[in-house]
Amino acid sequence: MPQLRLALNQIDSTVGDLAGNADAVVRWTRHSAEQGAHLVAFPEMVLTGYPVEDLALRPSFVHASRAALTALAGRLADEGLGELPVVVGYLDRAEEDRPRYGRPAGAPRNAGAVLHRGEVVLTYAKHHLPNYGVFDEFRYFVPGETLPVIRVHGVDVALAICEDLWQDGGRVPATRAAGAGLLLSINASPYERNKDDVRLDLVRRRAREAGCTTAYLAMVGGQDDLVFDGDSIVVDRDGEVIARAPQFEEGCVVLDLDLPAAAATPPSGNVADGLRVDHRIISADPLPPYEQRVTGAEAPRMDDDEEVYTALVTGLRAYVVKNGFRSVLVGLSGGIDSALVAAIACDAIGPENVYGVSMPSRYSSEHSKDDAADLARRTGLNFRTVPIGPMFDAYMDALRLTGLAEENLQARLRGTLLMAISNQEGHIVLAPGNKSELACGYSTLYGDSVGAYGPIKDVYKTTVYSIARWRNKAAAERGETPPIPENSITKPPSAELRPGQVDADSLPDYDVLDRILELYVDRDLGREEIIARGFDAETVTRVLRMTDTAEYKRRQYPPGTKISAKGFGKDRRLPITNRWRETG
Amino acid sequence: MPQLRLALNQIDSTVGDLAGNADAVVRWTRHSAEQGAHLVAFPEMVLTGYPVEDLALRPSFVHASRAALTALAGRLADEGLGELPVVVGYLDRAEEDRPRYGRPAGAPRNAGAVLHRGEVVLTYAKHHLPNYGVFDEFRYFVPGETLPVIRVHGVDVALAICEDLWQDGGRVPATRAAGAGLLLSINASPYERNKDDVRLDLVRRRAREAGCTTAYLAMVGGQDDLVFDGDSIVVDRDGEVIARAPQFEEGCVVLDLDLPAAAATPPSGNVADGLRVDHRIISADPLPPYEQRVTGAEAPRMDDDEEVYTALVTGLRAYVVKNGFRSVLVGLSGGIDSALVAAIACDAIGPENVYGVSMPSRYSSEHSKDDAADLARRTGLNFRTVPIGPMFDAYMDALRLTGLAEENLQARLRGTLLMAISNQEGHIVLAPGNKSELACGYSTLYGDSVGAYGPIKDVYKTTVYSIARWRNKAAAERGETPPIPENSITKPPSAELRPGQVDADSLPDYDVLDRILELYVDRDLGREEIIARGFDAETVTRVLRMTDTAEYKRRQYPPGTKISAKGFGKDRRLPITNRWRETG
Repeated sequence: MPQLRLALNQIDSTVGDLAGNADAVVRWTRHSAEQGAHLVAFPEMVLTGYPVEDLALRPSFVHASRAALTALAGRLADEGLGELPVVVGYLDRAEEDRPRYGRPAGAPRNAGAVLHRGEVVLTYAKHHLPNYGVFDEFRYFVPGETLPVIRVHGVDVALAICEDLWQDGGRVPATRAAGAGLLLSINASPYERNKDDVRLDLVRRRAREAGCTTAYLAMVGGQDDLVFDGDSIVVDRDGEVIARAPQFEEGCVVLDLDLPAAAATPPSGNVADGLRVDHRIISADPLPPYEQRVTGAEAPRMDDDEEVYTALVTGLRAYVVKNGFRSVLVGLSGGIDSALVAAIACDAIGPENVYGVSMPSRYSSEHSKDDAADLARRTGLNFRTVPIGPMFDAYMDALRLTGLAEENLQARLRGTLLMAISNQEGHIVLAPGNKSELACGYSTLYGDSVGAYGPIKDVYKTTVYSIARWRNKAAAERGETPPIPENSITKPPSAELRPGQVDADSLPDYDVLDRILELYVDRDLGREEIIARGFDAETVTRVLRMTDTAEYKRRQYPPGTKISAKGFGKDRRLPITNRWRETG
Repeated sequence: MPQLRLALNQIDSTVGDLAGNADAVVRWTRHSAEQGAHLVAFPEMVLTGYPVEDLALRPSFVHASRAALTALAGRLADEGLGELPVVVGYLDRAEEDRPRYGRPAGAPRNAGAVLHRGEVVLTYAKHHLPNYGVFDEFRYFVPGETLPVIRVHGVDVALAICEDLWQDGGRVPATRAAGAGLLLSINASPYERNKDDVRLDLVRRRAREAGCTTAYLAMVGGQDDLVFDGDSIVVDRDGEVIARAPQFEEGCVVLDLDLPAAAATPPSGNVADGLRVDHRIISADPLPPYEQRVTGAEAPRMDDDEEVYTALVTGLRAYVVKNGFRSVLVGLSGGIDSALVAAIACDAIGPENVYGVSMPSRYSSEHSKDDAADLARRTGLNFRTVPIGPMFDAYMDALRLTGLAEENLQARLRGTLLMAISNQEGHIVLAPGNKSELACGYSTLYGDSVGAYGPIKDVYKTTVYSIARWRNKAAAERGETPPIPENSITKPPSAELRPGQVDADSLPDYDVLDRILELYVDRDLGREEIIARGFDAETVTRVLRMTDTAEYKRRQYPPGTKISAKGFGKDRRLPITNRWRETG
């Protein structure tokens, strides 16, 4: 059987940073060459970053991506890497661009290209486009209708992009029909809890369907709300795992494969679901057999708490760095949410870049102030205290507020204080809200919801506790100081906006609340179905009612009547973390 | 030729308010019956409201919509209206619901139904689904594959929904192939500037293609960012306008049509683009000829400024009312933006429900305070003054802010002050930002961007001036006091956050700025193309750079790493104005 040394570059990429992403591809290609690779691959849309959102609909950006691809091919050759075939994802457009029902204007494509000897020798586009959850690819892309196959050292390698493997039909059966020896899929598959297990099962199943060794190359890093967990996988034709890359780490998986020799006559014609084989011969003859082989390794797996915690660290780090900041600011109440956020921030960018402010009011307990200071000591973050009493008095003198208005005022004074320090010193503010609070609307708009990034906004309170405990335990096991004060974990949660207030005054127990929210928010079950699972009817009604009425707070940007072609709502969707500048 | 009296009910609808929307259908059907109508129609998704966004993916909501439709059919019969065929839009699901590539889970349909004698006699679904701009219908709906035709008093009436007319192919040529005598399309087509002209041309062209009289029934009202401008149109088979309904007003267009008799044998089979005729006979025989005929009228058209202003009034009124509020709060700086917002609010919900606050700082000029008070006198809104000096001093004592941080602090103190009054008194806060500012990021996050609704967020500054002038002129022509102080219109715009500050320090002249923004934001042109239109290269570069970096401020909700099936970002999209409650 012919041999092939494959290099899967599981790397990060930044939306819009064409120059920086191209640099990374060159750097990692050189590294792959040094490892003796014969075929090198990079993730889906690595050149533009993923997801590009409405930038796909901007012709100047599509043009820039295409130009960057051509330049990259030339540069690889100029730097002596031209002999090595390189598969990269980028943003392209279909040549035929007449407006047609269901096709986005400009016919953009989520594309892959094979670069060789200074040229773009083959391009293709994602065939199956995801259009659910966080994905809107029917809005952005025109599907590809080929089965791209490259012959490398006598092995036919079929190429696919992400969703091509997630959906039935299409390129997987086409790969089998074309008799390919390897299926290589490049991906930017966002992390979700337990998705690694789903993904592993998927790749194993698809390899058996394709009838050949299958390599699944993942992206790693973060982009706005999305985090990419790495975990690239290679399985053989029976679905047995040959190699598995680490989670949440950049790196290059190099391994030698024994693959079936390609037929003398290249496959051609339509092979499945109307997919036409697009075949290129990069190098027809198998390599002379070699002995020094690199075998794949299986990186150790994180447990569930570590995985979630690491996802949050990865996401926050990416957001800060990709937006060009160096430091963050977080209000420290002494409670578990802000303590966890601070711990995540310290792990993401180092405690020397984390600034904490305690902003006590007359309702803040002594233990809260102590716990905040204790957190600072444990982590080494920069700490200061600014009491909000004088600001509170100035407002109360002018407005005579009562009840909820008085409670919310305190949270908003803190939001304003954080933004003032942020403006003055250049840190970005982190919002401490968790998913349980946000779902129920148990937070103050423009108060604790203030922030450029909410590290735990998709984490239920029960998970806040479990990953906080995990983080402390992990520290203890390494002989380090646990970052989160034990008292922040054990005391009853409270917003401390009125005397003696605790969360339990307003919300059901978090273990009940979170299970109801998970069924209602994440799984779309209705009231009757949730009650049928054994929850108290009155509690379910109360939780659903809170959730149904809290939508505005979760979004908080004001809508306004749309009168022109593009306002700034859902008709214009741009990544926040975006390095693309029309002005260069 | 057979006669038919058609009643097009151009009405408003509220997302999620199934009971209220059904009541409206019954009420307007009775009104239509009293006018002697033979066929009654209501807009797209009138029963659920439009757009339902991710509610379409919630099975309990789809179930509730279907149940409401059946109940509505029964109720119409119970109330003596059963003989009258009624066409209504609602949310349905396709019977076949196995998961399939490209189909949303649960197979929801943007559907229409014909109700008659207490039964749902025919259902159909939108064939062409829009998936661009504000539309995401590939995410939400499974397309319909029939050409629904009902025979009413001997006339074959083909039915369509909105995008079916906007795209080539599909139901328009199918209507011709089926030999229908009338094409009736129900719509929820969002307003855009000048869209009325586009729509008229479209309907005229489609009527000629369909070869029959074509009735285009529009929705009216507002839903979150969208506003529906009414303007229902009926044209004959040559595209000549027979009737045109008023803009932005609820009402029932009743008119008598002479229509070709249907063929003895109903159309059947596939007629075009794979559309299969689904034919129902409601009443086979033509009516005895009648003499007293209602002929269509063409409502007078608004000019461009009036149209935009009315759209803003309609959108704001809908947002306040549909969210269950009665009053609004607006900070009055004396400048043109807040003055226009206040005038719009007074027109939308009455000056007695509009609360204005002047919040002067040490940098506020005398004329600003005077102009704010003058606006209050002119409009009759509720007015108070709360200086922010004491709050400002409290922060400055604690933080020693300078430069931008000091400027932004003032805006945020005002935001907090407005929210405090809002909490205490129950008004919703209006954000005064205009599109020019928002595009360039010339505003303070959590400061002047605070608000539940931004009435002029999609209005460029030059349009702010022109519609303010129009509003004053319209008042003068009616012998009323112009609401907006002349001084607010004529003085140079300024944020007054430091001594002597004017917008022109930071921004190009608004007439240049707005033209560049329109090309860049609304039309997606690139830098080179904009410069080629004669703009100064340096100015273009400056504007594009500001716009490229302002995305976060426009959205302001914090992103956060997504770790579960549904966070609260783009994987979960719910209307803010939503009366659907799982809990009833």
